[in-house]
Amino acid sequence: MQGLVKDLTALLGHSQVLSHPEEMLAYANDATHYFKSRVPDVVVFPHTTEDVSKIMKYSFEQVIPVTPRGAGSGLAGGCTPVHGGIVMDLKRMNKIIEIEQNNMTTIVEAGVVLKPFQDMLEKRRLFYPPDPQSASVCTIGGNIATRAGGPRGVKYGTTGNYVTGLEVVLPDGTVINPGGKFVKQSVGYDLTRLMTGSEGTLGVITRANLRLLPFPEANRTIVVVTDTLEQAAEIVSEITGRGAVPAMVEFLTKMAIAVMNSYFSPPLPADGEGYLLMYFDGTESQVEYEARVVTEICNDLKAKEIRLVDDKEAANNYWTARANVYPLIQTIFQRATTEDITVPRNKLPELVRTVQSIAAEEGIMIGLAGHAGDGNMHPSVLFTQITPEILEKADIAVDRLIRAGLDMGGTISGEHGIGIHKAKYLEWELGLVQIELMKGIKKVFDPKGIMNPGKIWMEEGGDVHV
Amino acid sequence: MQGLVKDLTALLGHSQVLSHPEEMLAYANDATHYFKSRVPDVVVFPHTTEDVSKIMKYSFEQVIPVTPRGAGSGLAGGCTPVHGGIVMDLKRMNKIIEIEQNNMTTIVEAGVVLKPFQDMLEKRRLFYPPDPQSASVCTIGGNIATRAGGPRGVKYGTTGNYVTGLEVVLPDGTVINPGGKFVKQSVGYDLTRLMTGSEGTLGVITRANLRLLPFPEANRTIVVVTDTLEQAAEIVSEITGRGAVPAMVEFLTKMAIAVMNSYFSPPLPADGEGYLLMYFDGTESQVEYEARVVTEICNDLKAKEIRLVDDKEAANNYWTARANVYPLIQTIFQRATTEDITVPRNKLPELVRTVQSIAAEEGIMIGLAGHAGDGNMHPSVLFTQITPEILEKADIAVDRLIRAGLDMGGTISGEHGIGIHKAKYLEWELGLVQIELMKGIKKVFDPKGIMNPGKIWMEEGGDVHV
Repeated sequence: MQGLVKDLTALLGHSQVLSHPEEMLAYANDATHYFKSRVPDVVVFPHTTEDVSKIMKYSFEQVIPVTPRGAGSGLAGGCTPVHGGIVMDLKRMNKIIEIEQNNMTTIVEAGVVLKPFQDMLEKRRLFYPPDPQSASVCTIGGNIATRAGGPRGVKYGTTGNYVTGLEVVLPDGTVINPGGKFVKQSVGYDLTRLMTGSEGTLGVITRANLRLLPFPEANRTIVVVTDTLEQAAEIVSEITGRGAVPAMVEFLTKMAIAVMNSYFSPPLPADGEGYLLMYFDGTESQVEYEARVVTEICNDLKAKEIRLVDDKEAANNYWTARANVYPLIQTIFQRATTEDITVPRNKLPELVRTVQSIAAEEGIMIGLAGHAGDGNMHPSVLFTQITPEILEKADIAVDRLIRAGLDMGGTISGEHGIGIHKAKYLEWELGLVQIELMKGIKKVFDPKGIMNPGKIWMEEGGDVHV
Repeated sequence: MQGLVKDLTALLGHSQVLSHPEEMLAYANDATHYFKSRVPDVVVFPHTTEDVSKIMKYSFEQVIPVTPRGAGSGLAGGCTPVHGGIVMDLKRMNKIIEIEQNNMTTIVEAGVVLKPFQDMLEKRRLFYPPDPQSASVCTIGGNIATRAGGPRGVKYGTTGNYVTGLEVVLPDGTVINPGGKFVKQSVGYDLTRLMTGSEGTLGVITRANLRLLPFPEANRTIVVVTDTLEQAAEIVSEITGRGAVPAMVEFLTKMAIAVMNSYFSPPLPADGEGYLLMYFDGTESQVEYEARVVTEICNDLKAKEIRLVDDKEAANNYWTARANVYPLIQTIFQRATTEDITVPRNKLPELVRTVQSIAAEEGIMIGLAGHAGDGNMHPSVLFTQITPEILEKADIAVDRLIRAGLDMGGTISGEHGIGIHKAKYLEWELGLVQIELMKGIKKVFDPKGIMNPGKIWMEEGGDVHV
């Protein structure tokens, strides 16, 4: 491996190469820490597309695995170098190339961090909706690679809806530019979309053309407390059925609220079982109208409490707390593994019931939170300790959960991607024929199999566990 | 070919097979009539997915070209059997399988006709936005195959934004179901999206899962008349820049208005050069607010006339007239060939100027209409007679137009697809590497090359003209 480090240092310079094992430890994992992985042989920090191209050309000739990586905040083990080789950290490619206000578009490099970018846009009254809860650290390149979503998916869709073009470095170093600055295109197969969600297995995303919206002038936050989780789910289902479109409808349990309340004030009422945190945006009158419709629905379905949060700071606190539920829960439990099941929106009550009964039957804790408005829930198995027995129970419970979601017409991942975490379930959802088509596409882009190998589908004899 | 007809009749029965050349004449063309094509060897009418699977299995074994077809209302020569063989007419597969109001989704067969489907949804206060101007005849399967758009693209995006899942019959007869009823998914490569816009070259789309919206409760139509075409384009550009989002912004010229006025009343003012037909939808207050913002912009930019069309029937007449501009123009001229250039929205004034100067310099007539709000214009070369000289001039003019659109950062097709019409320009936009990737993907799905051969990219030594 000495030759590898030497060659890359010659290509890029010392400051763009990391090779001491202790420095590279963090690159063995993403925001999960419980998948089989390894420390990379070397980490490189390209500054330009040309750097990326040079690295890929070299790796292609030498047949060395390359795993592109943003902030490493993924929840599926997507950016970990399971076969070692090169990890390509794209965080230094973080320039905003242009913002065209009169075309409502922007061009950004892959390493641009989401939240500061959105804050900067807001000052210009522009809006880029995708909002994975790791927004303060995650990169737009990573969002694109995983087709990331977030609470605003209900009204605004996910990352894929905003990417109109890409700059991509192919495994052999060639640069292509599918799509562009225009907002509609029908020119052969949609390579822009094919790359979006490809989890670093087809090429390296170095730049993106993004479509922007005008920043909504008004917003309102409403908290709804219910006596049961099912009641909360029924309310969400009814909101969809009556055609109201909140920008966010987050579903939380008593436990999540307890965690949030210990960090933020004013505290939310602690005596409910289910909680809905809702957000409406648009013009002032539109927000008022939609909040009224939803309040009516909550009254009709006898919600325990409906709290309009008029104080902007309090509303902000709630949303910040919501964004931090996952890291907060990680500090309390030994481990929390998060699923990403998404079901048809009218199946939400059934999904909630199923999660509760599987947890009870298998005798483990399963936390429940998620973007209920689009049917995307994140049940988390919560471990107070890690023993072989509990791990086995958890495996059985997750298998049952995934199967149940699929039986409801759902999917194994709404917005996290497959990585290594869900590879074993891929065949359950897609069947072998679709997987073979995907492998065929992979081969067209990456004939030597060097791009982030070992991801999305199971490898022969593979096992994802530590 | 007698064997072919006999075999297919044995597979499907007499009523599902057409083989007399005079009966099949219409299948040699789509809504264009000026591309090299031929009458198919046989036309089949599957009633079920099983029928489609049987036909494909047979064609795969016998290596016979198959061209799927909806209403044949395409404008790029996408569904014509340039290599003969089987045309598969999917219009008899026209069942609406389900509408789930509380999931805001529907499942339809490929042959469902768009407008009656949308009318039926409206009665349930549901909304499926894509609106190609051939809505009264075109099929949803055809819309998906071409990633079709329409005026509402400005606010609502095109067909691709509403397809969440598909049933597809692969060339060997295998049936796959990428995507589903859920509204978000990140499970490997997006095969649903890859099929959307694939123009029948990867497999046969037999069913689709579509996402629906609540039907907007209010709407308003505004007609703006300007002294020059550029002034109209500047207004559109300013509307985008100030963040107003009309549902439709149609750009028309004096000539289009003259044509429309001869068929519909009350007539529009005939003394302008440029015309914008705008539509706002949403809640009553939202519509009012947006119409006010746009009226202000039109006043600021000194539009000649701003007419609020309060009478619903008059507004309907204008929109129906707009939808029929293309067929009406076809009745006046010997031929009208339509382009589909889409540029970044702030380049619209430049595109309009360029179209005008190319027409003047080449000494031909180019009509101009389009979905200005998303930068998608349809310049049409209008032929009062067909002579080799005029055809040559037209070729030169179109080459220049396409090149100019690309130079502005645009695309050769926003919503019509490539078919045979734009194959010669594909390389200008994509370059050889992207085309090779597409050919590679095609081979993964269709190893024998039987699906709608001769489309999207140029064939060796190919010539698209009659």
